Amino acid sequence: MQTITLRVTGMSCMGCVNSVKNLLGAVSGVGRVVVDLAAGRVDVEYDPAQANPDTLKSAIQDGGYQVVG
Amino acid sequence: MQTITLRVTGMSCMGCVNSVKNLLGAVSGVGRVVVDLAAGRVDVEYDPAQANPDTLKSAIQDGGYQVVG
Repeated sequence: MQTITLRVTGMSCMGCVNSVKNLLGAVSGVGRVVVDLAAGRVDVEYDPAQANPDTLKSAIQDGGYQVVG
Repeated sequence: MQTITLRVTGMSCMGCVNSVKNLLGAVSGVGRVVVDLAAGRVDVEYDPAQANPDTLKSAIQDGGYQVVG
């Protein structure tokens, strides 16, 4: 497993956090997801054989949240 | 086009509203989406030849929001 830290904007409450967690959790190969709402920081653990940064970013963007880094 | 009203729980801010709109907007055949955050009410216009209530509910649930009716 590998971990990536993404900077995400648009999350403004725990409902948003839950939404991002669910969207990422639906991607094959994703393990633990930790969201720091105040910092706009999302740490995602994933299996690089099944997922990659682009698939993770795309899942977040499907919910209308922006990945800025 | 046809319109369905869904009762959705778990939306607690405008970020959630935006998320639900994006998730529904990604479904083929979906037109206008109007969300009443305070009422937990989502009105979705859709083409019944391309989408159905189950695909709409499933898109909302992908974001971790619950469709209760």
